[in-house]
Formats: sequence, structure tokens, C-alpha cells
Amino acid sequence: MDTLANPALTSHHIEAFRKIVGENYVFVDEESLETYAHDETENLHYPPEAVIKPRTAEEISAIMKICNKERIPVTPRGGGTGLSGGALAHLGGVVLSMERMNEIIEIDERNLQVTTEPGVITEVLQDAVKAKKLFYPPDPSSRGSCFIGGNIAENSGGPKAVKYGVVKDYVLNLEMVLPNGEIIWTGANVLKNSTGYNLTQLVVGSEGTLGIVTKIVLRLIPLPEFDILMLVPFRNLEQAGEAVSAIFRAGFVPSAMELIEINALNIVSKFVDSNAVPVTPDTAAHLIIEVDGNNMEVLMQDMEAIGTLLSQYDIGDIYFADDAQQKAELWKLRRRAAEAVKLIGYTIEEDTVVPRAELPALIRGVKELGKKHDFEVVCYGHAGDGNLHIRIKKDGIPNSYGSEEMNKVLRELFQLVNGLGGTISGEHGIGLIQKTYMDIVCKEANLQLMRGIKKAFDPNNILNAGKIFDA
Amino acid sequence: MDTLANPALTSHHIEAFRKIVGENYVFVDEESLETYAHDETENLHYPPEAVIKPRTAEEISAIMKICNKERIPVTPRGGGTGLSGGALAHLGGVVLSMERMNEIIEIDERNLQVTTEPGVITEVLQDAVKAKKLFYPPDPSSRGSCFIGGNIAENSGGPKAVKYGVVKDYVLNLEMVLPNGEIIWTGANVLKNSTGYNLTQLVVGSEGTLGIVTKIVLRLIPLPEFDILMLVPFRNLEQAGEAVSAIFRAGFVPSAMELIEINALNIVSKFVDSNAVPVTPDTAAHLIIEVDGNNMEVLMQDMEAIGTLLSQYDIGDIYFADDAQQKAELWKLRRRAAEAVKLIGYTIEEDTVVPRAELPALIRGVKELGKKHDFEVVCYGHAGDGNLHIRIKKDGIPNSYGSEEMNKVLRELFQLVNGLGGTISGEHGIGLIQKTYMDIVCKEANLQLMRGIKKAFDPNNILNAGKIFDA
Repeated sequence: MDTLANPALTSHHIEAFRKIVGENYVFVDEESLETYAHDETENLHYPPEAVIKPRTAEEISAIMKICNKERIPVTPRGGGTGLSGGALAHLGGVVLSMERMNEIIEIDERNLQVTTEPGVITEVLQDAVKAKKLFYPPDPSSRGSCFIGGNIAENSGGPKAVKYGVVKDYVLNLEMVLPNGEIIWTGANVLKNSTGYNLTQLVVGSEGTLGIVTKIVLRLIPLPEFDILMLVPFRNLEQAGEAVSAIFRAGFVPSAMELIEINALNIVSKFVDSNAVPVTPDTAAHLIIEVDGNNMEVLMQDMEAIGTLLSQYDIGDIYFADDAQQKAELWKLRRRAAEAVKLIGYTIEEDTVVPRAELPALIRGVKELGKKHDFEVVCYGHAGDGNLHIRIKKDGIPNSYGSEEMNKVLRELFQLVNGLGGTISGEHGIGLIQKTYMDIVCKEANLQLMRGIKKAFDPNNILNAGKIFDA
Repeated sequence: MDTLANPALTSHHIEAFRKIVGENYVFVDEESLETYAHDETENLHYPPEAVIKPRTAEEISAIMKICNKERIPVTPRGGGTGLSGGALAHLGGVVLSMERMNEIIEIDERNLQVTTEPGVITEVLQDAVKAKKLFYPPDPSSRGSCFIGGNIAENSGGPKAVKYGVVKDYVLNLEMVLPNGEIIWTGANVLKNSTGYNLTQLVVGSEGTLGIVTKIVLRLIPLPEFDILMLVPFRNLEQAGEAVSAIFRAGFVPSAMELIEINALNIVSKFVDSNAVPVTPDTAAHLIIEVDGNNMEVLMQDMEAIGTLLSQYDIGDIYFADDAQQKAELWKLRRRAAEAVKLIGYTIEEDTVVPRAELPALIRGVKELGKKHDFEVVCYGHAGDGNLHIRIKKDGIPNSYGSEEMNKVLRELFQLVNGLGGTISGEHGIGLIQKTYMDIVCKEANLQLMRGIKKAFDPNNILNAGKIFDA
């Protein structure tokens, strides 16, 4: 029930926005609106009425004051790589694109912190701090095009999360513009903070519904000097899942622990024209395992011990990526898997997450579900976190959100996940497409609390309304 | 303006509570009320009208329904070791003591998680998981008597936070009773979660104002096998502060990095009758530095490298704690410093936190402030996090919160902290005693957001009202 009354934007509004940001940064032509009508979420398509590209928090503040007064829907937007529709203007109104707010303001080497604007591409930020031997670990597959601000909105993860945590573990403080135009900082640039409610952590993962983040202070850590990457072929998919938790139970903390099913690997290998992974017959899935640290000898010992531990499973020859190029090649295969399988018709990607040791049960359940409904299923993801991306498809069924048969299968999938103690999104967010399943993983009371929080920040419900939950 | 109308508890209420929890668990005798009238916060004294000791979430739910309907103030209470008055019934009404909810429900070795009730003593919980070679790092000085539930309420830290993070970094999911009696889980038992607003992180550090936590799911990590502890005497206090950030900038991540001023050390050494720390003339302060890990050789190398780095400062002989007993002795001195200096008249302890590299500026500023107002000042704390505990005193001035001269000095102290990019509490919370200073570190808009959040959870303002902010 996205019932926000939406008065069409008038030329007066457009004029006012142009006064604030300059003539060149308000777009109402069809081509521009079309460009901002979709993100990476499947079949969604919602052209806004105008696209504004502000440069400063003060400009955003002025825009918000108008929109708040006039009840104009506002949708903030980062790199447009989202997988849950969070950046789409499904109620019309304006899209605020953060692409011009793309400056890294300061890398504070004394305090191991970086202050950045939200429109910086995640990989650009990572490279900039890496040049100073510092490390910002959260690392979504889309890092080459997504914005750090979008990562804040979705509480993104990526392969390093298993050792280093997700975005929320690095955000110290946020400058944000509230829907009424007021500009606040959510906290302080400190490592520990017990000074009132944790507004910072509340805003991380709130999908742009509480305010528009305009500056971000992240903590950094020293860059580990070395890493080793290995690829382990398993003949049995569930055993690969079991091995994941066995490694952690044995006391190892790999810096990455990814799983990729053989069909996904074959598809992506063809897609990027790579023969990096040796063909091993009867392989069901691979684990990609990375360890990192400052002592190469210790890493070698760890990898050897992990190899010994894994020998109890039905595995093929372990392959070590020897140099930077081989590592990059392996990572490319993993990172581009989603894109590759999407192109051959697996359009819907789910973002399930369960307690790590329930991964085999999840894999088993998903395969059974596929069989039951005659769907093809492919799995890959951040196995070390219990975060499994699942894509399904069926010939003759429209492979898009909203189709009844698809919804039915997804509802069963999420009920399975919930039964295993898990939830429906580990790193993609709820946005538009998953809110219909929120009842599976939270009570009405939880949703009421979220609505109450939303109301405290955005009483007129103008900011990214109808995302996560209906008003 | 704690304006909550407080109808005196009647015998009907008491009768109703007794029906819920049993005759033996509702206390109205003067001695009991006196016992629960104070915590470890200085001079505060607020006897409740009744103390209730529930055993289950369902009992708490039934109690809350009555209190919500009748507008009876409810103050949840853990171990009573708080340092900001959060567990005190300053508006009367009932104290809900969690002391009977003291069961560790499950240590899940498969998933490296523990589910516990809130009334478990933190050290008991740590020891229980340690027996399974697992590690729960947050470790307040009061760990021998504080409750894990209180640690959640205050987002506690402790010496290991510098490497391992604070309580918020370990909480995966919370069962809580809302003020209206509804029982919810805030999230899921997963390592990554982007499913709606992060209610879990919002509740951590909310000082018992949003709900009553009845079950806690914490993630655990593998227990490191070894640690090395060293004590470094500095002839100059500010240099000790400088050395702290130099160590991190050089790429080391010690598992503890504590600072203790020489006067505090002398006082506590006398207090616990210890001569563990060799007397070195001209010492101004010590750093206590610990590294931990699974490879002793690497730790030795790290410690040696840290020692070399520190030799550029004006330091005395570095002392290594050789065995478990020596380590325990050193830690005892650090842990009991607060208690010892309190006994000789430094009653007010502040919990300042600044970006790590601003520590020397904070120390310098604090000393100047003391001189200016003719106050004695002593410092100790978690230097690695920039979290410095500061105690002040002056002959002839009532050393308690509320005295005008004390407030004036503290306000200047917090302005100094704020000017350095810091804030007024790193791990103790705001409670009753710091809320008068909240205006220094946040805008009225921030407080309004907090009030709005409070209202979403507790529309009748019955739960720990008047803590953190006035209604």
C-alpha cells in the first residue's frame, strides 16, 4: 500500500531545483529518466519524473525542504547496482543521484580512518587506502561500479566479510540530511561509543529510507601483506557445505570462503572465456579458500592444515593460485558468476543467509525444492558466512518478480531458510522485491517498530517510501 | 523533565506481580529496596517501590502489560555495576532484577555461537565458552560481577576491544519483551543481515530504554592459544599517548593497549598490596601491551618489533610478564585501578573517547584543565581505542554529580573532547548523570530522533524513562 499522494512535479519545482544545483544538473528528458529507471534488479522499471545531481549536503538540504513541504517522493541513488530495487522511484518524484559527490575527503593515516563522500566507487576507495597500506575490506562483487554510499544503504558484504565483517563493522560516523532538510552527524569519529542510541548503526542498512548520507567516516585496518588462494573441488555439494563449518570449528579464520556450484562455474568460465580452473570430472562444487596475514610461513602452515582437514571429504586435487594473475583470474570467475548465470535465463537471484553449519541443510532443501517444483537451481556465494545466493528458473515461467508461480517457490524457499534460523537477505537488502516475504522472518510487531522509526525520521514519508515495508 | 506521572504502587499491583512470579520473588521490604537503590555510580540513591525477580520472558511480558496499562515506571537491572545510573529507579516504580535469568542456554560449537539469558555473569559466560576453546572478548573491568545483559544495555568494551571490538560486534540476535508485553526477536542468528532496520544494533547500547532483553545470541571466535604481556614505563605522559597511535600506524594490532598514570598505579598497588610493577624513578605512566595469536614465534617477533619502535620514546626498562600469575597480577592492577582511586576521594569517573591519535592532545588538555580549576586529575583507560577514563577531585568541593563547580569543570572537559572529534561516553553509557552534557555532542535534531525512536518502542514512556535524554 504505497499510498503516498504524488502531486506531479510542476515546472515551478523544476525551476526551484535548478536554482539550487544549477541548470545543468536537473534532468527531465526522456533519455535521462530512462537511464535512472532501473538498477540491477531483474525486471523492474520505474522512470522518475526528474533526476537531480546535487554536489553538496547543503544543496540536498534545500531540495529536501521543498520536497518535504510539497510531499514530493525522493529516491536517493548510488551506482545503480542494487539487487532489490532500493534506488528505483516506484512512486515517481525525483531521483537524487549521488554521482557528483565523489570525493575522498581525507585519508587520516594517524587515526586509520577515511572520510569520503557517498558517490565514490567502492574499488576507487579501496585502491586509494591500499596505496597507503590501509585496508577497507567490504567488497561487493559490483565493487568496480557500485558507490560506497549504496554499500552503506544496503550494509553490503562480499567475500572478505567472513574474516573482516561487513560494512556496518567499519562505519564510525555519518553525515546525513534528514527529510526535513536538517543536516546532522549520527555519531563521532571514535572506535567506541555509548552516547545515546546508535543512530549510525540504525542508518547502515536502512536502504536510504531514513536520510541521505552525505559524508561517511570509515575505520580502516592495516593491509595484510600476503594472501594464499586455493580452489578445492568437491564431488558432493553438501559435503562442500559441511567442510565450511569444519574449517571454522578447527580454529581457522580464512579471509575468504566462497562456494560455487559446478554448473555456475562452467557457465561463467565460458562467459569470460577462461580455462583457469582445471577440469576435474565428477566435481559438484568448488570451495575458494583464501587466508591472509603478515607472515607467509604461517599462512603456508594454515593452508596445509586446512588441506589435511579437507582430505577427509571426497575431494579432487587442490589447486593453488600461484601468482597475482592466477588469483585475479579465479576471483574474476567468482565475481562474474552472477552476471553469467543471469544471462542464460536465471534471472532471479536470492540472498539467503543461515547459520554457517546449516549450509548443507539449506543446499539439500533448495535442491529438493527445485525438484518438487521442477525448477532449475544454481547456488554460489559467501559460504563462510552462511550467505548463499540462489538462482532459479523454469522454462515457460516468466522469470520475473511478481509471477505467481515464482512467488510461491520463493515463499517456500524463505520458509526453509527461516526454519534453519536464517533470514531472507544477507547483503542485498529488502527494497521493493522482498518486502512481500518479510512476514516470514519477522512479526508484525517488528514491522510496526520499523514503521515507528521511519516516522521519527520521515514523518511525511517522502524518502524512499514503500521500500522494506509498506507504510 | 522526568514528568512521568507516577501513581504509587498499590497492594493490588503487588498482588498481581506475586501471582505472576510467585510469592517469593516480589520484594517491598526496606532492606531489599535499599539494596537496589544504588549501583556503582557515585552518590546516586533511588530506592524503588518494589523489586521483582522474574524467571522467564513470559513472566516479564505479563508484568509489562500491567505496568504499561497502569503507567508504572519499570527499571530493568543487571548486576548493578553500572557507572551512569542506568539501573536506578529514579522515578520510583518497580525494578526488574534479571538475577534469576542466569542460564547459559546453549553453546553452539557448530556455529560458534552462544545463546544465553541476560543474568549470566560475564566472566562465567567467558569461562564457559573458553572451556570449549571459544572466545567472547568483551571484558569490562567488572566482569566478575556484571551481567551480560547489562553489557548489552551499555555496549560495554574492556581492554580487548582494541583488537576484537565491543559488545555490539558480537550480538547477533536478541529476544526482548517490548513495553506493551509483546515478545520479539530483533534479528536472526546469522553473521550477515540486511533484512530491514537493524533493531539488534539499535537495542545494543540503548540502556534498557527500548525493551527488556531476555535472550542473547552472541557470535564467538576461536580462542587464541597464546598471548604475551608487557609493561612499558614512560617518563612523559603525552609521549605514552603518542606511542599508542604509532604502534597501530606501524601495522600492529595488539590485543590490549592500556594506559595507566603513575599515581593511579601507585594507589592501586598499595590498595591490593602488590609489588608486581618494578619501581622505576621518573615514570609518568605505563602502557600495558598485549599481543595474542596462535603462533608464539610470531608474537615474540611482534613484541620485539614493538619494543624497537618504542625505543624512540623516553622509556624505562620494558617488563615482560612471564607466566600466568604475573599476567594476572598486572591485569589485577589495571582492573582495580578505578576502585582504588575512588576510595581515596576521586569519586567521579569520566568515560571520554577521542580518535586514537588525539590522545596526547586530550591528556594535555585535561591536565591544563585541572591546573586551571585547581583540580587533581588522574587518567587510565583503553588507550588503544582512544577511550580514556578521567577522575578529578578537589578538596572542599563535594565530589558528586550535581555540584555546580564540578559540572562546570566537566562541561569544559566534554567541550575539549568534542573539539577533538570525540564524545562523552565510550562504554559506560549516558544514564542519569551524563544527559545534561548531551547538547555538547549532539544537536537537538539527534535528540529528537532518539525521542521518536523511544516513542516507537515505548509510547507510554514507562521503561527506564528519563535515561539518556529527558522525555
